[in-house]
Amino acid sequence: MTDDPMAGLAHSEAHYFNSYNHHGIHEEMLKDEVRTRSYRDSIYQNGHLFKDKVVLDVGCGTSILSMFATLPKPSWPPPRAFLDSNAGAKHVIGVDMSTIIEKAKEIVEVNGMSDKITLLQGKMEEVVLPFPQVDIIISEWMGYFLLYESMLDTVLFARDKYLAPGGLIFPDKATIYMAGIEDGDYKEEKIGFWDNVWGFDYTPLKHTALTEPLVDTVEMKAVVTDPAPVFNIDLYTVKKEDLAFSSQFSLNVRRNDFVHAIIAWFDIEFTACHKPIKFSTGPHTKYTHWKQTVFYIHDVLTVETGEKIVGQLTNKPNEKNPRDLDIAISYKLETEDPHRVASGAGHYKM
Amino acid sequence: MTDDPMAGLAHSEAHYFNSYNHHGIHEEMLKDEVRTRSYRDSIYQNGHLFKDKVVLDVGCGTSILSMFATLPKPSWPPPRAFLDSNAGAKHVIGVDMSTIIEKAKEIVEVNGMSDKITLLQGKMEEVVLPFPQVDIIISEWMGYFLLYESMLDTVLFARDKYLAPGGLIFPDKATIYMAGIEDGDYKEEKIGFWDNVWGFDYTPLKHTALTEPLVDTVEMKAVVTDPAPVFNIDLYTVKKEDLAFSSQFSLNVRRNDFVHAIIAWFDIEFTACHKPIKFSTGPHTKYTHWKQTVFYIHDVLTVETGEKIVGQLTNKPNEKNPRDLDIAISYKLETEDPHRVASGAGHYKM
Repeated sequence: MTDDPMAGLAHSEAHYFNSYNHHGIHEEMLKDEVRTRSYRDSIYQNGHLFKDKVVLDVGCGTSILSMFATLPKPSWPPPRAFLDSNAGAKHVIGVDMSTIIEKAKEIVEVNGMSDKITLLQGKMEEVVLPFPQVDIIISEWMGYFLLYESMLDTVLFARDKYLAPGGLIFPDKATIYMAGIEDGDYKEEKIGFWDNVWGFDYTPLKHTALTEPLVDTVEMKAVVTDPAPVFNIDLYTVKKEDLAFSSQFSLNVRRNDFVHAIIAWFDIEFTACHKPIKFSTGPHTKYTHWKQTVFYIHDVLTVETGEKIVGQLTNKPNEKNPRDLDIAISYKLETEDPHRVASGAGHYKM
Repeated sequence: MTDDPMAGLAHSEAHYFNSYNHHGIHEEMLKDEVRTRSYRDSIYQNGHLFKDKVVLDVGCGTSILSMFATLPKPSWPPPRAFLDSNAGAKHVIGVDMSTIIEKAKEIVEVNGMSDKITLLQGKMEEVVLPFPQVDIIISEWMGYFLLYESMLDTVLFARDKYLAPGGLIFPDKATIYMAGIEDGDYKEEKIGFWDNVWGFDYTPLKHTALTEPLVDTVEMKAVVTDPAPVFNIDLYTVKKEDLAFSSQFSLNVRRNDFVHAIIAWFDIEFTACHKPIKFSTGPHTKYTHWKQTVFYIHDVLTVETGEKIVGQLTNKPNEKNPRDLDIAISYKLETEDPHRVASGAGHYKM
């Protein structure tokens, strides 16, 4: 069993990664404590904002956010925050394209909320809502790297068509951050691997591997630079065309080390809350199912404390499939040591 | 960080489970040492069988098996077994539906084997082979639970249409085994979870969860019964219709314990080899990417050493999507203790 890569894993940790079952993504999201608790608290702690309001849940999935906003009497003893809350929307409309909505309807029914929650299967652009406008939009629309396969377009469509003047959006701010990491061993395992596969030259797949960002957990101790924000959106004002962007970054090197990859993550804010709620998907805090996104660079940068890695991040939706992303990262090590000068650029698809 | 479910994982182990990237499945298969080494050895140790033969690789992927059968001069120092081998097919034809074949062509080219390997993208039923018949079929066609999304149908089609009389199939035998396991903690985490999700009743998804087998690694210490073979195929003679089957099983209980699930795995044999090669995907041996398949049963069986769990496994391809499977498992605990008598049946989809 010593050759078994699972050997170090407890049973439940091994199970944790199982994404085979059809509803696995919903299980993963519901079990993502950081995500679900942030949404719950943003609603439960702000009952005064939800009371008697019409709420639209864009991409409602299993309807957990719709139920939070409805605040019914659940069959199970509710958590303390539940009992303390004054909230209770007048009506919640949940919209989702997926067949999961059939299960959501059953769940809403067994929780006695069918008269308060209307669930509609279809595209946001096509469904007919039972209300001409809504007071609040709630949505968990974020994808890997914030924007990969995200439903943000759909949220913006719903905002422009249905949100009443002065209406609220939960959450309403998102920021992408970047940093440089030391990741030599794993870069060798993922990229170097293709140099010799069972005795053969697999370099055609090495190129592919370099163009595909990894979605993975990065340990804080691997982070070599300060983080830097590179993209920020306000959901009240952002337009679809703003999601194709180009942004400069400057990463301050914290210690003498090597940099094999640039990573990105995002923070989310609910600023409409009485006491603002935010969460991060960065390497410095608790695990979320979004993990971090790792972009291996061609070079290995040899960096010293106080130097900077400057560059540019460009992102645009893929022309063929707008839910996919074409990402470019250029980088340059600003150093006074001529032997360590390095710059380059990578193109990535996700 | 203590709430982080990744906390116990080394970086590379966490990375190991990443299946996000597009060619991730090929990386996972190539890095599956048990799988790839068994195929390689079945070819390299049997050069006398491959020499000057025409070989068909069904579902060739990145063409690793085609290259093993060709035995070229790789650009990298080849392993010892390579140098000792007398093998070398006259020609290898690789067929795959996937666009990976474009990368396979590049790989074959950089390894200098383009004149020995012909790669064809398309369905086995539609492509035109450069030879009217082949001497050997090699294929890595197995899916989870052996038959899920497997290419076995395609291999049988190729056998019936192209394999010369007396021709060989690598591998040629497959056997499914079952056993009972104790898995209380994880059953609670995966199934019991749906009883109370953030204060709500999610039992509609509990039913779904019970009908979906998990593909996951099971620790040997969780296995409570002896294994029992339930399905066996000989690739020279099996017919497509044989893949819908019903089979009795009898599992001898090894120790006083509880049984929460029935698991299944498969063994694979290359009996044409001079010295037969086989590998297992069971819990008693090294990790493979097929892991094991876990079927949770409705009851918890309280079992004693020497008792038997008897039952029936029924498998048939789903009518709408023949690559999916409809599986039924009935079970009965044979005990003389009237207080522990239990029987039931579960229906599963995968």
